[in-house]
Formats: sequence, structure tokens, C-alpha cells
Amino acid sequence: MKAYKDLTKDELLTLKAALEEEYKTMESKGLNLNMARGKPGFSQLELCMPMLDVVNSSSDMRTMLGNDTRNYGDLDGIGECRRLMANMMSVEKDNVVVCGNSSLNIMYDTVSRSMTHGVNGSTPWCKLDKVKFLCPVPGYDRHFKITETFGIEMINIPLHEDGPDMDMVEEYVNNDPAVKGIWCVPKYSNPTGISYSDEVVRRFANLHPAAEDFRIYWDNAYCIHHLYEDTQDEILNILEECEKAGNPNMVYIFASTSKISFPGSGVSAVASSIENIKFIMSHMTVQTIGHDKINQLRHARFFKDINGLNAHMKKHAEVLRPKFAAVLDTLEAELTGLEIGSWIKPRGGYFISFNSMPGCAKAIVGKCKALGVVMTGAGATFPYGKDPEDSNIRIAPTFPSIEEMQVASRVFVLCVKLASVEKLLADMEA
Amino acid sequence: MKAYKDLTKDELLTLKAALEEEYKTMESKGLNLNMARGKPGFSQLELCMPMLDVVNSSSDMRTMLGNDTRNYGDLDGIGECRRLMANMMSVEKDNVVVCGNSSLNIMYDTVSRSMTHGVNGSTPWCKLDKVKFLCPVPGYDRHFKITETFGIEMINIPLHEDGPDMDMVEEYVNNDPAVKGIWCVPKYSNPTGISYSDEVVRRFANLHPAAEDFRIYWDNAYCIHHLYEDTQDEILNILEECEKAGNPNMVYIFASTSKISFPGSGVSAVASSIENIKFIMSHMTVQTIGHDKINQLRHARFFKDINGLNAHMKKHAEVLRPKFAAVLDTLEAELTGLEIGSWIKPRGGYFISFNSMPGCAKAIVGKCKALGVVMTGAGATFPYGKDPEDSNIRIAPTFPSIEEMQVASRVFVLCVKLASVEKLLADMEA
Repeated sequence: MKAYKDLTKDELLTLKAALEEEYKTMESKGLNLNMARGKPGFSQLELCMPMLDVVNSSSDMRTMLGNDTRNYGDLDGIGECRRLMANMMSVEKDNVVVCGNSSLNIMYDTVSRSMTHGVNGSTPWCKLDKVKFLCPVPGYDRHFKITETFGIEMINIPLHEDGPDMDMVEEYVNNDPAVKGIWCVPKYSNPTGISYSDEVVRRFANLHPAAEDFRIYWDNAYCIHHLYEDTQDEILNILEECEKAGNPNMVYIFASTSKISFPGSGVSAVASSIENIKFIMSHMTVQTIGHDKINQLRHARFFKDINGLNAHMKKHAEVLRPKFAAVLDTLEAELTGLEIGSWIKPRGGYFISFNSMPGCAKAIVGKCKALGVVMTGAGATFPYGKDPEDSNIRIAPTFPSIEEMQVASRVFVLCVKLASVEKLLADMEA
Repeated sequence: MKAYKDLTKDELLTLKAALEEEYKTMESKGLNLNMARGKPGFSQLELCMPMLDVVNSSSDMRTMLGNDTRNYGDLDGIGECRRLMANMMSVEKDNVVVCGNSSLNIMYDTVSRSMTHGVNGSTPWCKLDKVKFLCPVPGYDRHFKITETFGIEMINIPLHEDGPDMDMVEEYVNNDPAVKGIWCVPKYSNPTGISYSDEVVRRFANLHPAAEDFRIYWDNAYCIHHLYEDTQDEILNILEECEKAGNPNMVYIFASTSKISFPGSGVSAVASSIENIKFIMSHMTVQTIGHDKINQLRHARFFKDINGLNAHMKKHAEVLRPKFAAVLDTLEAELTGLEIGSWIKPRGGYFISFNSMPGCAKAIVGKCKALGVVMTGAGATFPYGKDPEDSNIRIAPTFPSIEEMQVASRVFVLCVKLASVEKLLADMEA
């Protein structure tokens, strides 16, 4: 195929007419599909149903240490579930606190606590004139919403195929004491699917923050969420690297089973240095009487250990591979050579990130919506919802069925083509 | 029995010697009992075990509206659980948001959010020089810990048998714009067991707060926690009364099933005006991806409605009545007429509140501990842990067995007697 940019105006107009015809046909189908959120599909939810039988009315409700999970106590989580989550997060049990259903909630609470109480004794952020966070982009919209809600200034950092632009990160973190954090999804990044290289992780661990209360917010949401058995990403252990570098307190690691067991009923956890965990616990003891321990017991007994988790994740991967393939095959078949978009084939995670020609993302998402295919809002992957290039679109292929994904992908590439042609024609006019 | 205060020094010394003998006998028993926390006992936890079978691997996991509880969504709680909690809290479903395992967590979050974001658009409290809360005393230590943690100044308000001293409450709330809240346990109060009279509730509803962001923090923790079938307290509906009085936004109501289903795995809820709920939700949508909805489904299907809840609470009452009786009978038999302590016989809730002679509470709790009977720390029922009279002791009779409660009660009255005699003798010396 010839690149669109090399087409003459007449060729573009002819193409446009053909695409519009196709668009009308699609329009008549009255589709109602959703590629917006990283929601597991029905068959994934079915995978974990046996977990609901593991704890029942005849179960011994005590932990291995003999504590009754039904009663108050074990604020930091029951031992067996702390061990399970520690395994998953590649840290020691004592470095982990198991919380409720949502790791996002732990992140929000961590920022909120820093606003009102500072970090391990530092000045509360609400007393400071300016607090800044670095935001590798494109990134996870709900991270950005947290910092936005607290009035924290967000600074875009380009995310490359091996991780954030570390020159920029070092420049900001090592010189500006107002920079208190950076949002990271280090493995199978949301949305680009890339994983941080060893060098990037080491450069993170070796930062010399100008602010003593600077922390890396390491959201390892997709730590065991591989798509393939042969090609899997692994990242360096950030907690160990930080210790080695003499920055033991510099990172909070977050994870959950939302996309392992159930989004509506998982367990989440935070891992960090003992000193950080102590500070967190000194507040958690005021904040809550405890998280759901019966659900922790259910998870610990069902998955048992990291092998149980990994075996379960293989089943998820089997469900997800054809859905990802439906999108990737369509993108490749329909867009290769046209130079109107690029994408990365992820080896794990929940998303495919698509970059259109600059200035086309909003138009593409709008056209998809008009055809009944809901995408994540253009710009959502950037702080304040503002993609300076209007280029990035997050595709979430997990929730619809394979057949729906095939249809939705065809709609998507059609809209990419049409929006690109319109953009090129408008540029000629200008 | 003669009142201790009327005994001569010689009589007191003789009594002291006898009590010390008894004390030594107790000491030799090496007891290990706990009357410290309001924890349900083992047989109460057993009552709800069938709930764990209600949702299993062959269950339909959809709500009545067809939403899959296993997936993301229903941030404000699934409809049937909102209805259940609304029934329990005597409000409409739309006024309720169902959250996670801990109502304390909702209260903490409510105060924390007010610190960082104000109340429905008011100035964030962290930007104010001074924020004050009224604290009816004796009260719930964990309420006070929340406000203490946020540096909020706490003002003691005497709690009478019909509720807080409303003259003082009106004086503070209606005149001091720094007063932003009051902690209330309006029914079967923690620890005194009293319930607010209709007049008190109406006076609350008719406050004219100097601060627009003043709210009543109405922790209806024991709303259906009756001990008897014939004599039950009922309180006026504060949300309705506030509406009638033209103060629709003035109250947040909190409740949970911690002492209905399981402390380690219940559901909690907040109820308020639609305007307040909207503001709460506008933050909750940033804070969390949602609370545990499968557990909400479990609760809704097991209890069904308020009748199911009430029937279940009768079973709890049957377990609790003899434990309360063990304490109350001992207090009555051993202390009547001695004028060294007073107590209220509660009709519900989890505690018996004991007032010793001024200056004796710490000594009593210390002596109990030395004999192996752990009580709630003296002073814990007051802000900053400071009981100005050193008089109030909270007795939690629910966790130990009946037999253990009988022993613990005997230890307690022995320590009350001994500490009182020592105090009277010391006063004579002085």
C-alpha cells in the first residue's frame, strides 16, 4: 500500500468517498461495542468461580497462626495472604500490607496521607506552595486523576520502549524539591504495553532526589499478566535495587488481584521498606478496623502460592490472546504501509496503544463512537486529559468477545483511515 | 452494706487487708482474660456461617439489575445491598453508599476529605488555622483518634442519659465557626449504652451552625443491636428531622454489619442527603475502583431485608444477654450500697460503662491487668486519652465466655473495692 501522505488530492478524495461508503454501511449496523476500559471478559470471570467454594460454612476460619479471620485483628493482612502477595510482588512477607479490593485506593490514600501528614515525618504537602508529580505519558488515567484531585502539578515525561525518559526524570527529581513522586506502571505498561529495561530500573533506584519525601509510585498492576508462555517480560526488583543504591525508602509498590481473581472482589497490597510500612501502619490503625480477611483467606487457600497464581494466569492468557490477535491482525492487515498510525505488540497487560497521525485521535474516537464503538476518550492517557499531539488512543480488547473485537477493530481502522484522509485534505487546504 | 465513705480508718484498714488476701488468691490463678474490645465472641461468629454458602461457584453472580458483581462497576454499591443497608439505617436507597468492611474507614475518609477538599465546596480544613470537633464523653476512642490524627481540637461535651448536653452543643455549634463536627453514637452509645431522646435529636436537627461545613457525624453503629425483645430503644430519624428543620445536608450517618455478620468481613455504609452523597461520590470515583461487590451480594442474599437482619440480631442477643448479666449481676451483688461506683444497665450495644470514684479508674484497670484481666485503658473513652475525673471504665463483655465473664467480673469488683479503699485511705492521709 502507498503511504497516505504520498497520495495526491484527487487520490485522497476518491479514497475518502470509498471510506465514507464503508462508514455508512457500518453505521447501518447499529453496533454497540465497548473497547474503553480494561475490564476482564465474562469467560475470564468464570475462571475463578471455584474460589468461591474454598471458604464455606464448614471451613476452619482460622489463619495458619490461629487467628479467626471473621473477627477483628490482623490489620496488615493475614499471614498467608501477605505471603501470597509478597510472592507475586517479589518481596518479603514483612514488606507487604494486604488491603481491600482496590490497589487504586491504596495509591489514593498514600497521596492523601502525604497531603495531610507528609511522608515519614516530612512537611504535609498541603502546607507547601507547590507539589509536582512526574507522569510518564501515555499513562494510566486514574493515576493522573488522583494527583489532579489533590491539585498536584503534573509534568509529562515521554515513555519510550524501555521506560520513561530517564534523562528528564533525573533532571527533575534530582534538582526540584517540589517533585514528590512519579507514577510508574513498570511492566506491560498501561497503555503502551512496554516494560522497563534493567538500566531504567537501576537509574530509578539510583536517583538522588532533591526532596527527602520523593517516592516512586510503582504500580505493578500487570506483574504476572503475561500473554505468551515463550516471550515474557521480566523487570528488575525495584525494592532490592533501591536498597542496593542506598535509597531503601524510595519506592512504594502496588498490586492487586483485580485481573487475577475478580475486579469486584479481589485483594490489593502495598509493598515497601519496613520503615515505610511502619509509617503506613501507624495511620492505617487509625483509618480502619481492618480489611476483609475472609476474602484474604479465600485467595490464599485458592491460589496457595506463586505457582498457583501463574497457573491461573495461563488460563487468562488463553482467553486474551485471540482478542489481542483480533485487534493486532486487523491493524497489521489494514494499516501497514499507510503511515497513518503506529502501535506496539504487547507481550502482556491489558491494552494496545495506538498512535495516530498528530491531530487525529479525537476525530477517530468520535467517529468510532458515532458507529457504536466506545473507545477510551482521546487524551485520557495524559494528565488533565490533554494529549498535546492529539495522537494516542488506548485500545482495551479484553471485555468484548472475539467476534465483537473483530468487528470493533474493523470499525476502528476504518475510522483511522477516514480521519487521516480528512486531516491530510484539511492540511492541503490550509 | 455500709458506704465505704462512711467507714472509719480502722474499718478501711481491716477491709483492705481482707481484699488484699482475696487479691493474692486471684493472683495465684494466673488468669488471662480480656474485657477490652467490643469483639463478638466465637458463638456469635458461628451464627453467620451459612452466609458463606449463599454465594458459591454455581451462583448467578448478577445483581437484580443484571450487573456482574465480579467485574468493575456499581461504585456506590449494588442495588440490593444499598436497599438492605438503607432499611437498616431507616433511609432511602438513594441516600446510601455501600463501602468496604469498615465504617470507621468511611468516617476517617470523610474527615480526611474535608481536610484536603472541604465539605461540598467549602475551604479545605487544612487551610484553616483551627478546626474543632465536639466530643460527647465518655465516647468511642477510635472516633477521637481520627480527629486527633488530623490535629483537630477536641472539646469534651458531657453525655447525659438522654444524650449530649445540648445547651453546650448549641452554644458551641451556633457561635463558633471553627466547630466543624460532633461525634455521635446516638443509639446504645459506646460506652454508656444510652440512646438519644427525641428532644435531643430534634435539637440536633435544629442547630444553626456558625460554620456552613459543620456536620453531625452520626455513627449509628448499634442501630439494630438490641439485647432484649421487650425493652428496646428507638431513636428519631435524624436525616428526616434535619430535612424538616431546613438543614438537609447537616448529617452523615454511618453503619456497618461488623457486629451483625462478621467484623472481619462485613459491609459498611454511609447515608446522607443526595447533595452530600453526590459530593462523596465525586471523590470516591477518584479514590477507588469500587468496593467488594461479591460480599455485598452475599449480605443482600443472606439477610434479604430488615426482617432478616432483625431475626439474625435476636440470635446475637440470646448469646449476649447472659454475658451482660454476668457483669451486671456481679456489679449489683458486690457494689450496691458501697457508693464506690455507678453504672447504667444498657438495653443494647456492646458495652457497660462504669464510673468509679474520681481518681480511681487507672488504678482499677492497672490492678485488673496485674491479675490477668485486660480492660480498655482508663481514659480511652475521652479525647487524648485523658479522663479529667479518672473515673470512667468501659467494660466489654462480649468476647469472653459466660464463665470467663463471671470470673473477670469478680476480679473487676475486687479491684474496684481495693482501689477505692486505697483512695479513701490516701485522702485521709492528705
